[in-house]
Amino acid sequence: MTEEHLHVRKGVAASHDGMIAPPRKTFRKKTAEPPNLTAIAEKVKQGSMRELAKAITFIESNAGDHYLYGQKLLQELLPSTGKAIRIGITGVPGAGKSTFIESFGTMLCDAGHRVAVLAIDPSSSISGGSILGDKTRMEKLAKHSNAFIRPSPSGGTLGGVHRKTRETMLLCEAAGFDVILIETVGVGQSEFIVRSMVDFFMLLALTGAGDELQGMKKGIMELADAIVVNKADGVNKQLAEKTKNEFNQILHFLQPATKGWISKAYTCSALKNEGMDSIWSVIGEFRETVEKSGVLNERRRRQTKEWLHTLIMEQLKNNFYRHPYVKDQISQLEQAAMDGDITPSQATESLFREVYGDK
Amino acid sequence: MTEEHLHVRKGVAASHDGMIAPPRKTFRKKTAEPPNLTAIAEKVKQGSMRELAKAITFIESNAGDHYLYGQKLLQELLPSTGKAIRIGITGVPGAGKSTFIESFGTMLCDAGHRVAVLAIDPSSSISGGSILGDKTRMEKLAKHSNAFIRPSPSGGTLGGVHRKTRETMLLCEAAGFDVILIETVGVGQSEFIVRSMVDFFMLLALTGAGDELQGMKKGIMELADAIVVNKADGVNKQLAEKTKNEFNQILHFLQPATKGWISKAYTCSALKNEGMDSIWSVIGEFRETVEKSGVLNERRRRQTKEWLHTLIMEQLKNNFYRHPYVKDQISQLEQAAMDGDITPSQATESLFREVYGDK
Repeated sequence: MTEEHLHVRKGVAASHDGMIAPPRKTFRKKTAEPPNLTAIAEKVKQGSMRELAKAITFIESNAGDHYLYGQKLLQELLPSTGKAIRIGITGVPGAGKSTFIESFGTMLCDAGHRVAVLAIDPSSSISGGSILGDKTRMEKLAKHSNAFIRPSPSGGTLGGVHRKTRETMLLCEAAGFDVILIETVGVGQSEFIVRSMVDFFMLLALTGAGDELQGMKKGIMELADAIVVNKADGVNKQLAEKTKNEFNQILHFLQPATKGWISKAYTCSALKNEGMDSIWSVIGEFRETVEKSGVLNERRRRQTKEWLHTLIMEQLKNNFYRHPYVKDQISQLEQAAMDGDITPSQATESLFREVYGDK
Repeated sequence: MTEEHLHVRKGVAASHDGMIAPPRKTFRKKTAEPPNLTAIAEKVKQGSMRELAKAITFIESNAGDHYLYGQKLLQELLPSTGKAIRIGITGVPGAGKSTFIESFGTMLCDAGHRVAVLAIDPSSSISGGSILGDKTRMEKLAKHSNAFIRPSPSGGTLGGVHRKTRETMLLCEAAGFDVILIETVGVGQSEFIVRSMVDFFMLLALTGAGDELQGMKKGIMELADAIVVNKADGVNKQLAEKTKNEFNQILHFLQPATKGWISKAYTCSALKNEGMDSIWSVIGEFRETVEKSGVLNERRRRQTKEWLHTLIMEQLKNNFYRHPYVKDQISQLEQAAMDGDITPSQATESLFREVYGDK
C-alpha cells in the first residue's frame, strides 16, 4: 500500500481527480471499442457541438482511459487553440453575474461571435453539482446557436476543477469559439485561478463602493483590468456613477493588473442591456494594446509555464497527503506543533522519514 | 542516484538547505564531542548571548548533525518561547528602515526592553552576504547591552532563510528577548514571509503616497497593521501629514489585516527620534486588543500550522526539482508547453512516470 501510494506505480487513476492518469490496461472492462480520436478532433474543429461535448466529457473524466482520450484529443487540437479572447468575470453574490453574461453574451452572439461560457465554482466540489453556468440562469443565451454553456466541473479537488476548466477552454477554442467567458464566484482561490487562465479579468460590482469593498477579497481589485458597476439603472443610476468614480480613485493608487493597461471603472445595466457595447469596446481596445505590445503573448506563455508547475505541485501534494501514514498522522502533528510540543521542522522530518526513508 | 534523490534515503543532508536533515552517522569526521545540548539550552534561557549565538549557528547550519543539534535545542526551548511581541517591518528602499530600527530599538532598550533584530533578505542568497541586519547600519543599537542584531541568514533557498529566521526568533524569545523586530526588503515574497511569522506588521513609507503606492507590491498594504510615514521632519513635515491622510483614506477601503483592529497611518521622524513612543503605544494597544480577543493566539496557532505545511511543500518541491531527470528535462518541457507542442498535463505526467513510475 505504501509503495503504491508513494511511487505512484502502475497508474494512480483511482484517486487523483484526473490530475495525472497514465493508462491502466486492466482498469476498465473492454465493453467498448476505443473511440476514433482523430475523427472526433476533426469534427470538433469543424464545430460539431456533439463531438465537443464528448471531448469535454473525456477531459472531465477521472477514469484512466477516458482521461487519456481527453489528453490525446487536446494534444491533436492544440494547434487550433489560442485564437479567442479569454475573459474572466467575477463579483460578489448579487452583483448580477448571470444577468450580465446573459446580456453581454447575447449581444456578442447576435453580432456573429461564438461565445463559450465556462465556470469555476469550488463549492460544486462539495455540493456535487454546480449552480454556475446553469443554463436556466441564462435562458436566452443558452438557446442561441452561437453560444455554448458548460457548468463548472463538479466533484473532486479545486486542482481538478482548475485543470478541467482550463483544458475545456482550449477545446472550445479549437471548436471555433472566439469569445470565452469564465465566470466565478468568490469562493476560496477561485478568482486567482480564473485570473491565471484569462487575458482580461473583469470585476462586477454593485453601487456603494465603500461597503462593496469591505466585502471584497484582499488583492482582488489589483487583478482587475476593469471594474464594472452593474445595475446602473433607474434610481440607482446616479449612485452607480458615484461608485464608479470612487473605484477609479482607488484604482489610481493600485498597481496595474496588466502592463501597459490602465484599469478603470465603468457602469452598465445588464438588465436594461445598457453599456454592454462600451464594455466590449474596452475589451477590444485592451486586446489591441496587449497584442501590439506583446504583453498578451507573454502573459499566455507565462500562464502556461505557471500552470505546468501548478500541476506538478498539485500532484506532489496529492501523492503526499494521500499517503496512509500522512493521512493518519497529520492532524496529530498539526496539533502538537500548534500546542508547542514539537517544532514544525521535526514534524515534517518525521513524516518524510516514514514516507520516503528506510525503516 | 535516482533512488537516492527519490526516496530521500539515508539522509539528504548535503543539498537540502537544512530543511530536513536526518542525522548521517558518517557525515562529519568525529573531531569534536557532541555538545551538551541541555547545558546550552539552560544557558540560553539564562540569557547567555554566547550560547544563543551558538544555538543560532546550529539552526542556520545545513550540515546534518549541526542541524539536528539546532532542532533538539529548539525542542528543549519551545516551552520558553512565545512571550515576545513579534513585529515585522518593511518598506521601499530609502524609507529609512535601518534608521527607524536604530531609533525605535534604542528607545525600547533604554526603557528596559530586550530587543532582538532579525532580517529576511532573499537577495543575500545570491550575494552570499546580507546587507540587512548589518550592525554597522545600527551602530548605537548594536552596542546596547539589551539589543541583539542578527543579519539575514545567507545562502540557500528562500525556504531555508524562512525556516532559519523563524526558528532564530524562537531561540531569541527563549533567551528572554521580549521584542522581536524582523526587517525585510521588498524582494520576492519576503514581506509575505515576514507577515506569516509576526504579530504586528508595519509598513514604513515615504511622503507622497501616490507615487509611493505605485512602487508598492500588490497586496502589501492589506498586510499592514500600521503604515508609518517616516522622515516627517523639517520641510517634509507638512507633506508627511498629507501623505498620512491619503494612506488613511485608502486603508479605509481595504480589508483589515487583523480581525478587530483598524489599520491606520502615522507619521514619525526616525532621524529626530520623533513619534517613536506613539508607535510603541499603538503596538501596545494592538497587543492588548488581540490578546483579549484571542486573535493573537489564533493567529500564532494558524501561523504554526501553515508553517508546517509550508515546510512539507518546500521539501516535496526540493526533492522533485532536484531529481536528475527533472533537472534535465524541465526547461525543455516548459518550452514545449509554452510553444503549444505539448499540454502541461502531459508534461507533468511524463515527469511523474519517469520519476516515480516503473520503467
